[in-house]
Amino acid sequence: MKGTKVIRLREEVQLNNPVFLVGLPGVGHVGKLVAEHLIEELDAEKTLEIYSHHFPPQVLVDENSEIHTVNNEMYICSIEKCDILVLVGDHQSSTGEGHYELCDLYLDIAEEFGTQRIYTLGGFPTGQLTYSDEVLGAVNNQELIDELKETGVVFKENEPGGGIVGASGLILGLSKFRNIDAACLMGLTSGYLVDPKSAQSLLKVICGIFDIEIDEGPLEERAKEMEKIVARLKEVEQQQQGISDANIKDDDLRYIG
Amino acid sequence: MKGTKVIRLREEVQLNNPVFLVGLPGVGHVGKLVAEHLIEELDAEKTLEIYSHHFPPQVLVDENSEIHTVNNEMYICSIEKCDILVLVGDHQSSTGEGHYELCDLYLDIAEEFGTQRIYTLGGFPTGQLTYSDEVLGAVNNQELIDELKETGVVFKENEPGGGIVGASGLILGLSKFRNIDAACLMGLTSGYLVDPKSAQSLLKVICGIFDIEIDEGPLEERAKEMEKIVARLKEVEQQQQGISDANIKDDDLRYIG
Amino acid sequence: MKGTKVIRLREEVQLNNPVFLVGLPGVGHVGKLVAEHLIEELDAEKTLEIYSHHFPPQVLVDENSEIHTVNNEMYICSIEKCDILVLVGDHQSSTGEGHYELCDLYLDIAEEFGTQRIYTLGGFPTGQLTYSDEVLGAVNNQELIDELKETGVVFKENEPGGGIVGASGLILGLSKFRNIDAACLMGLTSGYLVDPKSAQSLLKVICGIFDIEIDEGPLEERAKEMEKIVARLKEVEQQQQGISDANIKDDDLRYIG
Amino acid sequence: MKGTKVIRLREEVQLNNPVFLVGLPGVGHVGKLVAEHLIEELDAEKTLEIYSHHFPPQVLVDENSEIHTVNNEMYICSIEKCDILVLVGDHQSSTGEGHYELCDLYLDIAEEFGTQRIYTLGGFPTGQLTYSDEVLGAVNNQELIDELKETGVVFKENEPGGGIVGASGLILGLSKFRNIDAACLMGLTSGYLVDPKSAQSLLKVICGIFDIEIDEGPLEERAKEMEKIVARLKEVEQQQQGISDANIKDDDLRYIG
Repeated sequence: MKGTKVIRLREEVQLNNPVFLVGLPGVGHVGKLVAEHLIEELDAEKTLEIYSHHFPPQVLVDENSEIHTVNNEMYICSIEKCDILVLVGDHQSSTGEGHYELCDLYLDIAEEFGTQRIYTLGGFPTGQLTYSDEVLGAVNNQELIDELKETGVVFKENEPGGGIVGASGLILGLSKFRNIDAACLMGLTSGYLVDPKSAQSLLKVICGIFDIEIDEGPLEERAKEMEKIVARLKEVEQQQQGISDANIKDDDLRYIG
Repeated sequence: MKGTKVIRLREEVQLNNPVFLVGLPGVGHVGKLVAEHLIEELDAEKTLEIYSHHFPPQVLVDENSEIHTVNNEMYICSIEKCDILVLVGDHQSSTGEGHYELCDLYLDIAEEFGTQRIYTLGGFPTGQLTYSDEVLGAVNNQELIDELKETGVVFKENEPGGGIVGASGLILGLSKFRNIDAACLMGLTSGYLVDPKSAQSLLKVICGIFDIEIDEGPLEERAKEMEKIVARLKEVEQQQQGISDANIKDDDLRYIG
Repeated sequence: MKGTKVIRLREEVQLNNPVFLVGLPGVGHVGKLVAEHLIEELDAEKTLEIYSHHFPPQVLVDENSEIHTVNNEMYICSIEKCDILVLVGDHQSSTGEGHYELCDLYLDIAEEFGTQRIYTLGGFPTGQLTYSDEVLGAVNNQELIDELKETGVVFKENEPGGGIVGASGLILGLSKFRNIDAACLMGLTSGYLVDPKSAQSLLKVICGIFDIEIDEGPLEERAKEMEKIVARLKEVEQQQQGISDANIKDDDLRYIG
Repeated sequence: MKGTKVIRLREEVQLNNPVFLVGLPGVGHVGKLVAEHLIEELDAEKTLEIYSHHFPPQVLVDENSEIHTVNNEMYICSIEKCDILVLVGDHQSSTGEGHYELCDLYLDIAEEFGTQRIYTLGGFPTGQLTYSDEVLGAVNNQELIDELKETGVVFKENEPGGGIVGASGLILGLSKFRNIDAACLMGLTSGYLVDPKSAQSLLKVICGIFDIEIDEGPLEERAKEMEKIVARLKEVEQQQQGISDANIKDDDLRYIG
């Protein structure tokens, strides 16, 4: 397979006031967990599959020992307010060029469906194992900020300081050229672990935005499992604390080029 | 040489009920060992060579100090039941894009010969030096499973957990788009060493599938040599056991993103 | 977005005796600091933006939580003597091929504006924390040397010994093919830290070349902050001095391939 | 600059019985040292320059502080027996694909000049600091072997065991497709250092092949300087000998995949 291939499972799809929601794998898999949860709970229908040589040369094996080539997929969740076009997937692009090409492809498809609003979901790595239920936002148009603040999204000057790397950020950037309003919503997370608890916080915001109620049960369960792991990691961390020794404060490091 | 070049050594090849068998280098070189053993024992005839800028920029030197550019080759083994088209080679693609392009090329050729069934051979890394004669299977169509179980192939839910990376997996994935049934057969192996013993186990399964008998002599000999090495590696491993110290159980690590 | 995209903010720009000045991120961010300072102090006007899949797949977030895709930008500074076309940006190309392609694009644009002279700004890493106000030069035409020596630029045989890597060097190389005179001006810097002090030295040279006066205030302030960091780093360095032990003198290392 | 650019310095070049000699940078810079020495001593004339986005994005600075973009160059050395077309350069390709593309370009040019014989020069890394004056050969046609043995070239079964990586090998491989006889001649060298002494051994073989006499003076001098360095490195090596501890013999390692 040279290049990228889109397989459409349904013809002539008509969406009602479509919103594009992106939940690809990334920091803490926060975005992916939320998007997959929505697909599950809202009985979404798969509408297309994307295969690309920009993904790793890999297949995944399901519970019946049947494989599928790693891909990205779009689902349609119909709720009262609108239709949500949800992008999920096994991987993001392996290369920088691939990111630009694929994000543009996602937007081509979203535009074709008539999308006028985009939310990309992700995690914001704090580097610390302490839990926070904050959801940080960034936008490609300041006019979105007030509306999002009302649903609990927090905005901070120049945050994330290192920008947003990967599809969650680039989709915001590229949709600006198309005059489509887009926001990136990031659950705070350690950055070390899959984080269903952060996904719960992000899900709450999403429910607010779309005016829906979603059962958090399965995320709740996974979150509890993870809490046990985190507790043990914290123990290890405390034991190691004595070893590390810093002559230069963290604060200084931001000057280092 | 820009791109990829196929050199055909024979014109107008007609195959009898052809099956495509892939044994490229990979984990433990299990697939490659089996495929090369078949070519040797069944007096196979080379039918074509594939050169590509996706392979490393390298030549190999033979016993007469003559070089050849690293390549992939296809051989034809004629047995009673069918003709086996065997793919072997010095390397897999160096790049992700190259994997997609080359696997599609292999399938173009296999289809041109009329192939209706594919087996890709590989090794499944256990991370342990203990020997197992298990051969694990994955398929691109569940209907193959019963048939393969009869020849001793084992199937496990979601195994391999990390999917299958490289040509062995991708050929399964891409042949699904072409509606060609394909299975990947993996000999269990440590993952650290070339493993002729695992290749013997895999060869037994292949003999069952094709209803043939093959002398295992040369593989047997190499296996005995390797056993001595493994014995010594195990000694070293035991000596080092005391050193490593794990506060977090292996089992927990699957949660770490 | 496939490839590279130039967004022009003004049509039919006419420049007076234009000089092209390049200050992209690099060693000590010396070139970038100088170029951004000029843009600020000379009230420059942005004339175009360059986006490319050769840049990282990343967006940056501003003080209003609004993002922009990482890019390069050109500004026009009008001074008495001439118009300066200044290239600044968030990143240089991520790939080797991208460097060649983008540097050629910069030169296409500079030529289109009628540029007959180019200065690329950068830092020259000394590996030492001691400060030097030297500005080292390299040219694509020896006839530039005398003129530049008069403004305080220093020239040394075969320096930098490792050549100049990235856009600052390549723009010199590629403009030679176009018969445009170009010089690279490098402030000496440790190579470990963002270096506003080295930027001040380089700014002085630039002011001499263009016969302008620029307020160094903001650079001065940042330089003072950095001096405190450097003082502390030097302390650390002295503490560690005793540890390192060299049987082979530095001087010998240049023979090592 | 997109792609690759050949700048021809002379038009309508007619060569007498041309032989193509390749001395690009590589192991111990042995091939490059010999080729540059020949160019110097035989008053060769530069005939063309090759620039490419497959080389690093870098310029080098000469003794007059003037830069040139890293490149490859071809020179013509006219001797009694024939004209030697010599390829030298600052770098080999940075990418695998670039190697294939550039080696094919070199061969296109060599064929255009009517070349019927190719020698690529290189170093063969022994991993040991002991000196050997052996020159190892590999060919793309066994018929060359007897002829080369007479000039002192040594041939060993399957050596180099890891094949030949880079242009020296690939040019042999690709010229086979064009039915041009080619040999790779490798001076034995440690692999850690620039090795003018190994270059002297290789030069002797080349002089034999071309029936010429060349002053070894400059190589001799550099060789003496290096001997001092090597003597000191050996001292260091002996001091460290006690530290390394091997439970597994080197000999076993060849089985490790």
